[in-house]
Amino acid sequence: MKSSSRRKFIGDSVKAAAGLGLITLTSNSEISMMASKNLFVHHVYFWLNNPESADDLKKLVEGLRKVSKVKTIKMFHIGKPAGTNRDVIDVSYSVSWLLLFNNKADQDSYQTDPIHLKFIDECKNLWKKVVVYDSIDA
Amino acid sequence: MKSSSRRKFIGDSVKAAAGLGLITLTSNSEISMMASKNLFVHHVYFWLNNPESADDLKKLVEGLRKVSKVKTIKMFHIGKPAGTNRDVIDVSYSVSWLLLFNNKADQDSYQTDPIHLKFIDECKNLWKKVVVYDSIDA
Repeated sequence: MKSSSRRKFIGDSVKAAAGLGLITLTSNSEISMMASKNLFVHHVYFWLNNPESADDLKKLVEGLRKVSKVKTIKMFHIGKPAGTNRDVIDVSYSVSWLLLFNNKADQDSYQTDPIHLKFIDECKNLWKKVVVYDSIDA
Repeated sequence: MKSSSRRKFIGDSVKAAAGLGLITLTSNSEISMMASKNLFVHHVYFWLNNPESADDLKKLVEGLRKVSKVKTIKMFHIGKPAGTNRDVIDVSYSVSWLLLFNNKADQDSYQTDPIHLKFIDECKNLWKKVVVYDSIDA
């Protein structure tokens, strides 16, 4: 595994994100292979009960950091609104939770992982609304 | 650049997605460094005027593939609903367009890139609704 998974980055022309077959490295001329066919994108947006509470935000972010230890998660990003503002942009959420999985089975496993279930149990009182978008290659 | 950007993957314990400083490779014990502090996540969801039209879907996906050539885009994923279905999951959109940028300035540049503007001009008649979520590190 170690030798076969060694990769070489090819400078600024490389559009990145690589990992264990999750996403294929490409140059600008090879963009069509950017993502593996099985990539599963799970993006969750949270609306807090108390969006002005820095403590509640911190609790949720800390909870998500713990969830990120679930082994099937191949990449994650914990975000907040970026400060952009156009008509089409939803700026009303408090926390963005982006996860990439190698395939749907890994995401299914994550849904019932004890670490994930514990997070829901401990943090569910923090939010009033959750919206999830699950995507696979179009 | 070539030699310094060479990386070694460390087997299954690595949570992936690496690229030119965009996202730091981590093992399970080093998850807190997963993403760079400046990572900008731009996620767009499209609702087609004719969601049953395979032709329109194809046109939009092909348009997005062209947009992916914008140089500041560091990673992209063109998706469709994954077939999951729970109360919190929005399954009503047609296409998901996930972009990662190294920083907000790169995303700002993308917004006015001629390739992007041409795409909007050529494809805007395909969709009836767009929702965007922009996120930076929480």
